[in-house]
Amino acid sequence: MKLKVTQENLTKALNYVARVASTRGTLPVLANVLLSVEDNRLRLAATNLDIAISCHIGAQIQTGGSLTVPARLLQDLISSLPAGVIELEQDDMRLKIRTDHYKSVINGVSAEEFPVMPAIEKGIHWSIPAQTFKESLQQVILAASNDESRPVLTGLYIHVIDGKLYIASTDSYRLAEKRLTKTDKDITLLIPASALQDLLRVLSDKSGELEIVCDQQQVLFKIADIELVARLIEGKYPDYRKLIPQNFSTTAILSRAEFTNVTKVTSLFARESAGSVVVSADESSGSVWVRAVASQLGENDASATAKVSGGGEITLNSRYLIEALQVIDSDEVKLAFNGKLEPVVITAVEDDGYLHLIMPLKS
Amino acid sequence: MKLKVTQENLTKALNYVARVASTRGTLPVLANVLLSVEDNRLRLAATNLDIAISCHIGAQIQTGGSLTVPARLLQDLISSLPAGVIELEQDDMRLKIRTDHYKSVINGVSAEEFPVMPAIEKGIHWSIPAQTFKESLQQVILAASNDESRPVLTGLYIHVIDGKLYIASTDSYRLAEKRLTKTDKDITLLIPASALQDLLRVLSDKSGELEIVCDQQQVLFKIADIELVARLIEGKYPDYRKLIPQNFSTTAILSRAEFTNVTKVTSLFARESAGSVVVSADESSGSVWVRAVASQLGENDASATAKVSGGGEITLNSRYLIEALQVIDSDEVKLAFNGKLEPVVITAVEDDGYLHLIMPLKS
Repeated sequence: MKLKVTQENLTKALNYVARVASTRGTLPVLANVLLSVEDNRLRLAATNLDIAISCHIGAQIQTGGSLTVPARLLQDLISSLPAGVIELEQDDMRLKIRTDHYKSVINGVSAEEFPVMPAIEKGIHWSIPAQTFKESLQQVILAASNDESRPVLTGLYIHVIDGKLYIASTDSYRLAEKRLTKTDKDITLLIPASALQDLLRVLSDKSGELEIVCDQQQVLFKIADIELVARLIEGKYPDYRKLIPQNFSTTAILSRAEFTNVTKVTSLFARESAGSVVVSADESSGSVWVRAVASQLGENDASATAKVSGGGEITLNSRYLIEALQVIDSDEVKLAFNGKLEPVVITAVEDDGYLHLIMPLKS
Repeated sequence: MKLKVTQENLTKALNYVARVASTRGTLPVLANVLLSVEDNRLRLAATNLDIAISCHIGAQIQTGGSLTVPARLLQDLISSLPAGVIELEQDDMRLKIRTDHYKSVINGVSAEEFPVMPAIEKGIHWSIPAQTFKESLQQVILAASNDESRPVLTGLYIHVIDGKLYIASTDSYRLAEKRLTKTDKDITLLIPASALQDLLRVLSDKSGELEIVCDQQQVLFKIADIELVARLIEGKYPDYRKLIPQNFSTTAILSRAEFTNVTKVTSLFARESAGSVVVSADESSGSVWVRAVASQLGENDASATAKVSGGGEITLNSRYLIEALQVIDSDEVKLAFNGKLEPVVITAVEDDGYLHLIMPLKS
């Protein structure tokens, strides 16, 4: 392998793939990035066995070949070099990197030791605008669980109801659901949230269509010259929709910014109670109150102007409430609940297909 | 105590004083900020027994009094409130904080429990432009030691030579010295670096003169409405000046940005050798090389164009070199050394009174 690439292109490609490489695994080669010449371009790839990512970049190829080198070192090195042309040359198991004033040699590991993800043979193909998918992911991914003891809840669930595609997640304390697009395909996917975090990084500066191919075991996301493959989570996703109340005795419409701020301020006094705050809606005064009492620290009462119908109070985890308000894409939000025992539902005032549900705490 | 202040002024004052308060001490009241009415203004103060800081702000005072409340909670609360007028009211040992939509109560501790630093009675007075002192501190403070087993080296040493004031620090591996101003006073001070870090935060947005008053035990810094008092370190500062070589067999003048970058890139390969790199100057090729060889990772050679007189090489800690280059205020720097055993000296090409010395490593 001997080739020339620009520092700019190589840095960008490494920023996409290097983070997937991991030094924590038991297999040392997983900390490496695979460089190989394919179709007269340079391919970079990394995997942690759950996720594999690869990226093709234009290069002036002199000879082919392949080699793996430590991802982090290569990324730090290339991103520190001045802009311009870089020469890469394989010398057995070593990679030589040369520019005008810099000469580096990195010791590598044979490409044969690098694990290959199986290809998706007969999958379902579909596509969605990359930015739509990115924004929807950002609204839903926060409610996925980190608890590995219930693997199903660590995934995001993509499925079809009445010809419409939905993406949902729940950690059993809160739940987020977003309607994506119409579809005539039979799609059911449970994708690890961690893989979708990697996808979000890839999508951050991408426009155009995101192509998706999936079978029973894997899903492939493809955009521009980047491919990300993730293993699906096995198991049955809970029937989360039956948790969502259909009618509400209390609704309040209020400014998202104000509601966020009164909750943030009150949460300062909720440290002793693990973040628990009381939210109450009052029709006659036209306000939503957020309260916390901390026996040691003190207490706090804060209110926001609101259009209230009905009235009542509910005890919530302030962190969940703040995080939900942060991802709703609307100046005004609607809060709806039925007394203290049922979950609260937060949506945008103009229906945009997004719903966030938070289970109440005992008060 | 009952008064009105603006959220903006109170936030600013708390940002100055609250960081000095500490929850790690054995005395719980040290985590609190003292609020008191003095001369028709609100005074805020915090101390960790080594440093005390206080700040006066304008307020509409209704009744006087004093109280201490948790610094962190008050800071987080006030900074989260909307801009505008805030009412503070003392109710025995509780502080009530009110604005239009927010009502908070913070449980406090009696002001009588708050420790008072002794006043400086007969001190030496002098002053220096705040920005000059800030920039000089930033150039010198990095060489102070963190090692509490040699307390003298954890301080910055301010002293007079031939009618000129100097500030210096050394951790015995490197040394920084900056010439400040002319003076006719007999000033010798050894000030804890930690206190000067707090002072740097205060000085960040301040212009005008910084007033300084010192006696044998303490130093007081005063600017605008802020006062910072620090206990001095006892003990004799080493005669660091005898470490500085006066003549050099090799000098090289080169771009600070280029030298920084070749050192940074090479340091990536110096992890195995605890950051050690070889710097060499070559007169005939007009370049300075920085090299590292790592048996596991690989190796790196990088060069920068330089005006070299003499020639030779020296082994240095790359982190020290990078940090020194970052604080020198000059596009071009001068590197000067005598073979492998004596320290290297780095200065700006135009003499600005700053000198940075780094001890060589064994190679």
